[in-house]
Amino acid sequence: MILDRGYVHGGDVYSRPVRLDFSANVNPFGAPEPVKAAVRAAADGLSAYPDPCCGPLREKLAAFNGMQRENVICGNGAAELIYAFAAALKPQSALLPVPSFADYENALLAAGCEPAFYPLQRENGFLLTEDILSAVRPGVELIVLCSPNNPTGRSVEKGLLLKLLDRCRKTGTWLFLDECFLELTDGDKAFSLASCLQPEDRVFLLRAFTKAYGMAGLRLGYGLCRNRDMLLRMCRLTQPWNVSAPAQAAGLAALDCPAWPENARALFREEKPYLAEQLTRLGFAVLPGDANFLFFSGAPGLQETLLNRGVLIRDCSNYRGLGPGDCRIAVRTRAENGELIQIMEEALGV
Amino acid sequence: MILDRGYVHGGDVYSRPVRLDFSANVNPFGAPEPVKAAVRAAADGLSAYPDPCCGPLREKLAAFNGMQRENVICGNGAAELIYAFAAALKPQSALLPVPSFADYENALLAAGCEPAFYPLQRENGFLLTEDILSAVRPGVELIVLCSPNNPTGRSVEKGLLLKLLDRCRKTGTWLFLDECFLELTDGDKAFSLASCLQPEDRVFLLRAFTKAYGMAGLRLGYGLCRNRDMLLRMCRLTQPWNVSAPAQAAGLAALDCPAWPENARALFREEKPYLAEQLTRLGFAVLPGDANFLFFSGAPGLQETLLNRGVLIRDCSNYRGLGPGDCRIAVRTRAENGELIQIMEEALGV
Repeated sequence: MILDRGYVHGGDVYSRPVRLDFSANVNPFGAPEPVKAAVRAAADGLSAYPDPCCGPLREKLAAFNGMQRENVICGNGAAELIYAFAAALKPQSALLPVPSFADYENALLAAGCEPAFYPLQRENGFLLTEDILSAVRPGVELIVLCSPNNPTGRSVEKGLLLKLLDRCRKTGTWLFLDECFLELTDGDKAFSLASCLQPEDRVFLLRAFTKAYGMAGLRLGYGLCRNRDMLLRMCRLTQPWNVSAPAQAAGLAALDCPAWPENARALFREEKPYLAEQLTRLGFAVLPGDANFLFFSGAPGLQETLLNRGVLIRDCSNYRGLGPGDCRIAVRTRAENGELIQIMEEALGV
Repeated sequence: MILDRGYVHGGDVYSRPVRLDFSANVNPFGAPEPVKAAVRAAADGLSAYPDPCCGPLREKLAAFNGMQRENVICGNGAAELIYAFAAALKPQSALLPVPSFADYENALLAAGCEPAFYPLQRENGFLLTEDILSAVRPGVELIVLCSPNNPTGRSVEKGLLLKLLDRCRKTGTWLFLDECFLELTDGDKAFSLASCLQPEDRVFLLRAFTKAYGMAGLRLGYGLCRNRDMLLRMCRLTQPWNVSAPAQAAGLAALDCPAWPENARALFREEKPYLAEQLTRLGFAVLPGDANFLFFSGAPGLQETLLNRGVLIRDCSNYRGLGPGDCRIAVRTRAENGELIQIMEEALGV
């Protein structure tokens, strides 16, 4: 938790009045009805401790991902697993491409590791390129990647991901790959390493229900990893009952709703081009985003201006490697996106 | 979480069929209706991230405990705060009276500390005595106490607690005091240190909603501490959104139900003497318990025998300082308690 205000992430609709939240990258349709029903049903069984093994949920996640139950770890949101992984590995040397999600760095710092940063290039649209391969030198214990990356929305191309996996095998480097936005990503940009893992691979794939199933408030994430020793170490560092009973029930219900992320992806196929076009028309430099959000530049002070109108977007100037004017917005429904653009027009006086 | 079965705590109703659970020490009335209603209502707002500051909940907890919001930290169950505290302090030297809750030791081991154990004496009914004062020597960085203690049910007498606080002030020792069972404890045995804390005190008081409000499945605990540096360190070690939105809503609702723990205490005033008498009649040595559970000895193999009849009790033989035949049962309603005794009679053939 955060002790005082001074919060750096998206989704903080608590410190100021927010009518429209474009700062949190969640499914714009919210949670599917069976997930809500599972939470309501769980209200009658709150006095029992949750299953500390998350047995049925891990079974179902294993089947869903073509792996074994023993390769699945569940967390109180994906964020808990970032901290548990960093604390379990305690690397001497870690490489973080930036800009990316701030909690990779925070979790490593909390584990006593000062990571090295690998700057993604703005001129190159913040794409990860093959140059990363030579940065993964022997002695680098960990590289953390996010694909599609937050906040840039750029995914790592499949061929490069496979080369990186190969490189990590050679150097003995752990690859922590955040795939939390994968289910809201289309086509070949949604490539997961899950099917490529060998038993000896030092790879941890991070997944969340937060985004694809609109469950951010409930906290449920998971990891896929074939290194049993790592999973055992992570479990020893976390309490036995870290995943609540409503979250476990909701996760089981969500996995019965495979069309839910697909519905959102269909929406994004319409809405991403619309929003990108409108933002460009308003004078912003928009990155082609592979996920359910768009990164654009050229808007210093826009967050505050819009917040005064009840709309929250993510000012990205506090991301390492970014600066004033860099922003991120979630892609939402046409009604909401249209309203956002209209409010932006008014605010900018165009 | 726990990767594989081989779970050591009470409340595991998942690995074997259980009709009656006496192993988890929760309010036998379950959760109050407003708590259930809050969880049901939260089902419609799952897509928003929870408040990372737990603002309204910490305000209310501060008022409830006569402290300031800045002295309150919330956790994904009290268990998370045990691990976060141990990881934040990383003591070189810690003292654990035993038998007590296993996760104090587990959390310290995970933080790299091998604690020293202070054996409570069976001959003395496992009561903590003034001898503990001399064990808190300069150089002891931490002492962990649980009052009433799990699994013995014995509380630390008020006078001794105050002397211990004074001793810790002199030696600079942190006192981590688990008060999770306090709200289900009666009269002067329910003494809390909360009102005695000075700004400079190195004291962390652990509290839970789990037990008093029957919310174990939801995960909500909190800590009271006037040492701001410790709370900030704990926050840096945990993820921003550790307390789910339904748990925050449920906690707020629970605090509006002060009669709920009192109703349970009234039940225990009848049922503890009844159960103690019956267990004594069956030949067991029963400790006078101050909390909502009873510790008794003389029943090796009883857990397995009862489990075959669908009843789960807590075999305590895996607690440090205990052995075969040591058991703990929650105090529940007369109907359930009567059924337990009847099943025990049948099982024991008396």
